[in-house]
Amino acid sequence: MTFDILIKNCTILTMSRRDEIIHGGIIGIKDGIIADVSTGGDIQSMDAGEVIDAEGSLVMPGLVNTHTHVPMVCFRGLADDLPLMEWLNNHIFPVERKFISRDMVYDGAMLAIAEMILSGTTTFCDGYFYESSVGRAAVDAGMRIVASQGFIDFPTPDGQDPSNNVRIAETFIEKWTDVSPLVTPSLVCHSAYTCSPRTLMAIKDVARRYGVAYQIHLAETREEAAMIERLYGETPVRHLDKLGVLDDATIPAHCVWVDDEEIGILADKGVRVSHNPESNMKLGAGVAPAPKMIDRGVVVGLGTDGAASNNDLDMFGEMATAAKLHKATLLDPTVMDARTVIRMATIEGARVLGLENRIGSIEKGKTADLIIIDVNRPHLTPLYNCYSHVVYAASGSDVRTSIIQGAIVMKDRILRTMNLSDVMDRVRKIADRVKAFSQGGAAS
Amino acid sequence: MTFDILIKNCTILTMSRRDEIIHGGIIGIKDGIIADVSTGGDIQSMDAGEVIDAEGSLVMPGLVNTHTHVPMVCFRGLADDLPLMEWLNNHIFPVERKFISRDMVYDGAMLAIAEMILSGTTTFCDGYFYESSVGRAAVDAGMRIVASQGFIDFPTPDGQDPSNNVRIAETFIEKWTDVSPLVTPSLVCHSAYTCSPRTLMAIKDVARRYGVAYQIHLAETREEAAMIERLYGETPVRHLDKLGVLDDATIPAHCVWVDDEEIGILADKGVRVSHNPESNMKLGAGVAPAPKMIDRGVVVGLGTDGAASNNDLDMFGEMATAAKLHKATLLDPTVMDARTVIRMATIEGARVLGLENRIGSIEKGKTADLIIIDVNRPHLTPLYNCYSHVVYAASGSDVRTSIIQGAIVMKDRILRTMNLSDVMDRVRKIADRVKAFSQGGAAS
Repeated sequence: MTFDILIKNCTILTMSRRDEIIHGGIIGIKDGIIADVSTGGDIQSMDAGEVIDAEGSLVMPGLVNTHTHVPMVCFRGLADDLPLMEWLNNHIFPVERKFISRDMVYDGAMLAIAEMILSGTTTFCDGYFYESSVGRAAVDAGMRIVASQGFIDFPTPDGQDPSNNVRIAETFIEKWTDVSPLVTPSLVCHSAYTCSPRTLMAIKDVARRYGVAYQIHLAETREEAAMIERLYGETPVRHLDKLGVLDDATIPAHCVWVDDEEIGILADKGVRVSHNPESNMKLGAGVAPAPKMIDRGVVVGLGTDGAASNNDLDMFGEMATAAKLHKATLLDPTVMDARTVIRMATIEGARVLGLENRIGSIEKGKTADLIIIDVNRPHLTPLYNCYSHVVYAASGSDVRTSIIQGAIVMKDRILRTMNLSDVMDRVRKIADRVKAFSQGGAAS
Repeated sequence: MTFDILIKNCTILTMSRRDEIIHGGIIGIKDGIIADVSTGGDIQSMDAGEVIDAEGSLVMPGLVNTHTHVPMVCFRGLADDLPLMEWLNNHIFPVERKFISRDMVYDGAMLAIAEMILSGTTTFCDGYFYESSVGRAAVDAGMRIVASQGFIDFPTPDGQDPSNNVRIAETFIEKWTDVSPLVTPSLVCHSAYTCSPRTLMAIKDVARRYGVAYQIHLAETREEAAMIERLYGETPVRHLDKLGVLDDATIPAHCVWVDDEEIGILADKGVRVSHNPESNMKLGAGVAPAPKMIDRGVVVGLGTDGAASNNDLDMFGEMATAAKLHKATLLDPTVMDARTVIRMATIEGARVLGLENRIGSIEKGKTADLIIIDVNRPHLTPLYNCYSHVVYAASGSDVRTSIIQGAIVMKDRILRTMNLSDVMDRVRKIADRVKAFSQGGAAS
């Protein structure tokens, strides 16, 4: 058997339905696909273009970040610890209005992709202005993306006229259909408080016609929930349900302020939720009832949200936080066990994005999106339980090697698909202009 | 001017009272002391045994971990996601009874110290059995420790007879007084539910006579609070107050279940609290009212607790969690701002341990305990605000170099004071025996 890549001597967390862990295993990759995953008895007869000896390492599916706005890395740490509306209105919105451009979005996306690959993420679901620039960056970097064109009921930095929404949505999807196996187009309505019922329904209609995912920020803050009740006489989830936009291709992010009956609605409609605990914490939004949603059968994945509200894109940190936060608030150390949390960051995240047949687990026939974690580290010693280490002790910097669509995009922490120092320099130049603008008083 | 070590071209977070940040600064170290910290105008005239060019780096005080049990790294990840009593009684206590020895404690402590130095901690306050072995490991590794001999009202792995408590306490303090500038002896009573009033008072009396700190686990869980009320008719803090053991050299860890009046008692008595948010979360203990304690004037530092309940000893993770957790539960993004959290991990932590005149800030005349953080990383790009990056985006692995008592204990992530691979191997051998024992059914 001849492979393009052969990984040998590793412990494999397959995250398959049977939850198999293979010790002393091999993974053979051919044409971007996992052609073999086994204990590798017959390894002498195997040949490969590139052999990776992963002795002492864990191999697991690449992590799936189900909700982010990656170009916001350009504003990482610009303003923190502020009341939400002051943060948005006096800091984030002014610099977005001033600095967002096709180039800024591309440069920010490249930096974010570098950070994500270096911390074990192989798929991200993004929504921002100039989303095609994010899509281009992902293709250039060899990263998997669900790229979401955004809609909102006022003029945006990319100059959309809300009256052309349907045509813009169709054009975006057509533009990105079958361009690259790495890119899945989708649509995002910002929220029920920035999009009218008409916009919400019109964009969902396009999403349904093209069979793409439809995202929305939903029930993130108390203020949002109160505003929707004031405007429409319904809580946010019920409002969307009445508009008929909830189904199994709708991906709301956050869902912090949802009651038990609303969780039932999400479950009944097959809605897939992106849980973003660190962003919800940092912005003081609250704690989403993720354990209850999972118990009720809602498909829940993890997301970091943008780097202005996190402030990193590290899914290892997000896993650790998701595992611990709910134990604290529910006073129950048994909720959100390590295995459940890893599933959220892998196969369940893939399910949220509708990609579970291609990615999210290490199984024969699936696309080769996987990461190799070095556990020969003091903070990962000793090793009793792989799931526990991944969630409670490992960090993004323990990922040594990352493979996406069968291509090695990082090996021994060196990125193969970009010049990292150029990428960082470009964003620093953007930041210099942002600093000058902010210090000029316009943003503070 | 001739220094032993000269650090140049760095941004310095002094954490001094004036909260000064020095750009393009220098730090000169002589005889273990910070002899100069300035913008270094006259750098041409400076000479040094070792010059560190820290271009593009942040220098800040080494982090102070105010509560841990470092030998427990040997049981890291052995048992997680379990009800507290099952975790303790069926997993932790049985393996502790079986495996704790002078050598195991030393080996575990060395591994833990490696992990702590590699993640930016330069001082830790520890309490465990065979604590003198932890003290020896710290001296051997060049790490600063507040080493606490532990007391509990039943026979312990190190074979203490509770009737000899006072003598054991005195002997421990005398043994470690003036042995090394790195070691400060102290005493720890495990808790009010495992120590009688008589033990609590007798050990506090020894601590007072010798002028050393007195630690205790306090109000960690609801169950503990209920038990103390049942036994003594008082909540835990009031119980200790009535016994007269609360003063400004008493360091309770946790303080999760304390009401407003009890916070007032802690403030009035000058008690210094170790806040351990990740351990409290993971064990489902709850969320300590740390912001309220700080508001009321209680000195609060950060701690990781042991690695069986965290599961790492990374103070960067602890800072990120402390900053975000309270925002989520109080629904207020302005509480626990980044600067406050860094103070908790540095100068306030030093104050908790009574070491604020020696460590915790970078100021002329203080002992040289400091760390150099590489910010030339994608997840730390761009850089608008140093405090924000340290808390919300940096991780322990971004620390490049660590200096304790004027000695470089890590340079470019290589530990200079131990053979790391030997240290890891020794703990793996302990773990092999633990695994065999646990799988034998005795511990599960």
